Formats: sequence, structure tokens, C-alpha cells
Amino acid sequence: MNIDRAHTSDQACRITAQPVVAIVGATGAVGAELLGCLERREFPLRYLRLLASPRSAGQVMRFRGFQLQVEALDEGSFADVDLALFSAGSGVSKRYAATAVKAGAVVVDNSSAFRMDPNVPLVVPEVNAEALNSHRGIIANPNCVATIITVALAPLHRARRIRRIHVVTYQSASGAGALAMEELRESTAAFLRDEAYEPKILPHPYAFNLFSHNTDIDPETGYNGEELKVIAETRRIMSLNAPIGITCVRVPVLRAHAIALTIEFDEPFPTGEARALLESAPGVRVVDDRAANLFPMPSDASGGDDVLVGRIRTDLGDPSGRSLTLFAVGDQLLKGAALNAVQIAERLLVDRT
Amino acid sequence: MNIDRAHTSDQACRITAQPVVAIVGATGAVGAELLGCLERREFPLRYLRLLASPRSAGQVMRFRGFQLQVEALDEGSFADVDLALFSAGSGVSKRYAATAVKAGAVVVDNSSAFRMDPNVPLVVPEVNAEALNSHRGIIANPNCVATIITVALAPLHRARRIRRIHVVTYQSASGAGALAMEELRESTAAFLRDEAYEPKILPHPYAFNLFSHNTDIDPETGYNGEELKVIAETRRIMSLNAPIGITCVRVPVLRAHAIALTIEFDEPFPTGEARALLESAPGVRVVDDRAANLFPMPSDASGGDDVLVGRIRTDLGDPSGRSLTLFAVGDQLLKGAALNAVQIAERLLVDRT
Repeated sequence: MNIDRAHTSDQACRITAQPVVAIVGATGAVGAELLGCLERREFPLRYLRLLASPRSAGQVMRFRGFQLQVEALDEGSFADVDLALFSAGSGVSKRYAATAVKAGAVVVDNSSAFRMDPNVPLVVPEVNAEALNSHRGIIANPNCVATIITVALAPLHRARRIRRIHVVTYQSASGAGALAMEELRESTAAFLRDEAYEPKILPHPYAFNLFSHNTDIDPETGYNGEELKVIAETRRIMSLNAPIGITCVRVPVLRAHAIALTIEFDEPFPTGEARALLESAPGVRVVDDRAANLFPMPSDASGGDDVLVGRIRTDLGDPSGRSLTLFAVGDQLLKGAALNAVQIAERLLVDRT
Repeated sequence: MNIDRAHTSDQACRITAQPVVAIVGATGAVGAELLGCLERREFPLRYLRLLASPRSAGQVMRFRGFQLQVEALDEGSFADVDLALFSAGSGVSKRYAATAVKAGAVVVDNSSAFRMDPNVPLVVPEVNAEALNSHRGIIANPNCVATIITVALAPLHRARRIRRIHVVTYQSASGAGALAMEELRESTAAFLRDEAYEPKILPHPYAFNLFSHNTDIDPETGYNGEELKVIAETRRIMSLNAPIGITCVRVPVLRAHAIALTIEFDEPFPTGEARALLESAPGVRVVDDRAANLFPMPSDASGGDDVLVGRIRTDLGDPSGRSLTLFAVGDQLLKGAALNAVQIAERLLVDRT
């Protein structure tokens, strides 16, 4: 990464009040949600530029009643851009983010390209917004699982120090993109018609099936790339040294991730106190109705901004009473991606605090 | 439970070589699999009696090329029965199991009615077959999750003492019966046609959705009935005092349960040794190909007898190296229910050891 414009003062870290905004990867699953978030949240932009691969150029997308044409991304795309929201994969971010910064834009990058770069803040606004003050042009938007975990755990970590986290995920198709969501629908329809279906996007049958996350396995630890990302990013966002154990699994759900969390604290944590902290935490909605057996579900989280948290219990696996267990569900495309990126951008606007 | 026939000697615990067998609940999801297991495993029976509620009486089911008619269950159903396989829910077991024993039958009960009764052995043959020697007419077939867990963990527990278990489940529709499986198919088809669907069997939408297990919640601990059963039964089958933390979730999969397990042992457990022990363990098939990213999946476990075990790793959440993490998948209707019941019965046959 080569950024030749230094953002040294707080003021330099801000975006102009009515920025020109570009979305890189506008036609993808997250790109479409970025448009939706900017519109719905009335983001005060002057102009919106939609960028994508040459293959998608010419497509028309609606924004605030206008028809915007998608342009092919190239070196000259960022001439007048103040804010560039990247969501076109690591390769595109590595190739074009520095170009955008050099042209004067602040980049909020949804890929994993810069997430562990010490010069790039990795931000969940509810958790570590202060990290935005030291950005140098690029801000990384975290892995969707890490975002959901940190939104749910930060309010608890502020009350008792976290000593260990155990994570098991139920990840939806959207994390693998729009084509994976389509593959889940199509392969399920074929299954119900008793027809064969050859997976094209994902490596395993997906209809009424689940499988270990399809990122490469680290030969030394046996953990897959997704698991190692979640560990590293969760620790970085929360400034945490605690060890994290994790298993990431894809389930046949369309667009919200569910996560079973067990957290060991440095002292006992009464569930009533944890619940109260979560109820007043930004970005969290407690769904924990034991009598009605109603807890967080992807069907309730999909399309919503909040991370739903429930099943707040003392872990029966830890007789010391220092461990809690929770079940959190968040929309992978919104808080797990597009919404968090737009929330980061909102914090950067000059006229907001 | 009132059993007036004492089974005091080893011999008295056995079933005659060519028994008359009854299936109670023959038309249910597990009932149909019991027929399949008896046929496929060439269980040496003299005659098979199919029993069910009056509503299902008269239905015809195929067995070894014969057409067998389902009879309505009543007090006189067990006159000549040597072995009764019950799978019609706790209520039916509580009402009729003692009747069957009084009539001279040995009962293998798939419900939860007697599982924690100290006079009733709770048996997974690969794990604690010796408990069969002291039965008094009724043997309990464990909860499907407990069966899968104990098959996977017993070979490891024999090598290092288990100190703690952490369980997170991905449970299929079959655990809630044949109608729940049908509801998953129907509601998913409706979802794909963009039509509304009112759940009838399960309390929440199931198409491309997941939810916390729909058993009642214990108000004191916040754990649901399924979770408390798995804890109690796993400890009983393995004669284990270790604490168990657990979260049970239903996922939109038709008939195999997946389970993420983290196990703390009393000393470090090299993964190579764990893998070798699992590879030679009865009832286990190791599926753990890191290069091909191939691990246990419901689609591979469904219809098969083995519990698939993979993702054998040292838990990164425990820096002491004493914890392993695994992913196990087993067919809920087979090893989780019908197959285990028939395997118990096989151990009881006079002419087998």
C-alpha cells in the first residue's frame, strides 16, 4: 500500500460535508446493500458513482428515484471522489485502493486486503470508533462474523475483562456472494423436484445440507482461513489478548449469520447484569423470551440493522460461574458488511460528530 | 414402572434366538427406519408385529418382501412378543412398556421416558454395552445427540480423562418427526414460490431459517429440555462427572445432526493420536481431508450407520493444549435412533455374544 497523502490531523481524517461517493463492486450482493443503506440513511452525498467490472458496466441501478448507470472501474475512476466504498474482493482493493486515496478519496474497504495492516484501522463504530482518528486514507470494514461478535461482546467486555471466547458459527449463503445465494435457492428447488444439481459456486451440495467453511485450511493448526480471520480481527477490534477457539460452518440460510458464543470473564458475570448491559448497548436488540421460546433467528435479523442477542445464560460447562453463553444473529449483508461501512463513513463526515 | 419379572442372571437378560418382535410406533419416522434396520441387518426374527395408534391401523408396510398390516396398539398387543421396540413418544412408553415386560418381552425404548431411571440401562453399544447385563426388562435408547457425542468421545475418553465438554448442535428436522421433515420441505417449496406458509408442526418458520431448539426452557438455568437431556444422558452413558456446556439449535437439514465439540482433557492430547484412536473406533468414520476441504456433512451421513468425525484440531481457545475440537455428524434416524435400538437388541440375542 502506497499512500502519499498524509492524514495527520483530526480534520484531515474527515470527509467533506457533501461528498462525491463511489461504490466499487456496485452490482454484487454487498454493493446493492450499500446503495440501499446510503438511500435509507439519507447519507448526505453530492453524487454517487457506481463502479464495477467491465462485464457489469452499463447496468442500471436505482438510487433515490434516479437511474444510475454502472461504469467500468479503471485508474481514472476516482478523479472527483471523496469517499470510495470498496466491495469487490481483495484483489480489486489491493489494486485500486491506493489509487483512490492518491486521487483524494477516503476508502472504506469491505475486503480482507488491509484488515491486519497496522496502518489501517479496522473499525466497528459501536466498539472502536476512536480508531478512525488515525486513519491514513483507508479504513477496513471487518469480517462479518467478527463484526457481529464484537457488537455483542464489547458492552460485556467493558464491564468484566474477557479471558477466553469460544465461537461456533452458522453462516449464511450471502457471505459467499449473490451467486451463492442463487445456488442455494436453485439447488434446493432441484432437490425438491428430485433432480440432480451440480454445485458451481460452492464446493459441496448446499440443499438441506451444511459444511465446514470453504476457505483454505492452515496445515499447521487445521483451522480454515475464515476462522483465523475471525480470531485475528476480533482480537484487533476489541484490543483483546484472550485466546479464541472457533468452528465456522456454512448452513442453508440465505442472508443472516448466527453465532453461538461462550465467553469466560475474569470474574462471575450475573446474567441479569449482562442482559441489562446488552439491552442498552448500541446496535444490539435483546431477543430472549424464555416463556415463548423466542430467541434470535435469521428470519428476524434479515433486512434489519441490529445484532439480535439472546439465550443469555451462565455456561453450565464452567462451574466457576465466570462464563456466559449467548446466541447472536446479524444480517451478514448489513451489519456484517454494507451497514457497517456506511456507519464508518457517517462518522467521518465533517458536519457530524 | 412396575416390572414383576426379575431378570437376575445374565441368561435371563437375553432374548430367545428367533424372537417375535414388535415395533410400537411403526408408522413414524423412526418406526420406518426400525423396519429398515431389522431387514438390512438380517435380524433373526420369527415374526414382526407392527403397532401404532388406531389412526394408523390398517396401513400396510413392506418387510422382507411381505406386506405387513399395522395393528392398533392395546393392552393385549404383547401376548407372544419377545422384543418390543418402542418409538411412539414418552406417553406411550410410560403407558405400555411395563405391560410389554409383564407379557414377557424385553423393551428397547426410544423415548425419554426411562432414560434417567437408575433401574433402566441407557446404552450405546460401542460405549457401555456392559450396562445391558443388569437390565430388568427395559433398556433405554439415548437422545440422538447424546448417542452421536458418546460414539465420538468414548474412544478418546479411554485414552485421556475428559474434564469438560462444550457442545453446539446443528439438529435436523427428523428429530421432530416425519411431519417436521415434511414441513421443512413444504415451507421451503412455498418460500421458493414466494408464497406464505403457516408453520403447523414447529413453532417458527423453517425455510432457510434456524432456531433455538423448541423444547421448554428451564427457568432456573435458561437451558432448554433438549440441552438438559443431552448433558444428563452423555454423563450417564460415559459415567462422566465433567461439566458440559451446550447450545441446541434446529437447522434446515432433513435427517442428520451435526455437532461441534470442544473437549478438555486432563492432559495434552496430540491430534495424531486422537485421529488414530477415532480411525480404529467402532461406529466412527474419520472424514478429515484438509487439502480437499472435506469434512463431515449431513449429505454424507444421511442413510449411513457411522458417525462421521472430522476437523480434529487442538483448540486454539485453550493455550494449555489440553483441549481438542471436533465436528461430528450422524444420521439422527439411524445411529441417533433406530440403528442404535437394533444394535442393542442384537447384543441381547441368546446366540450372539
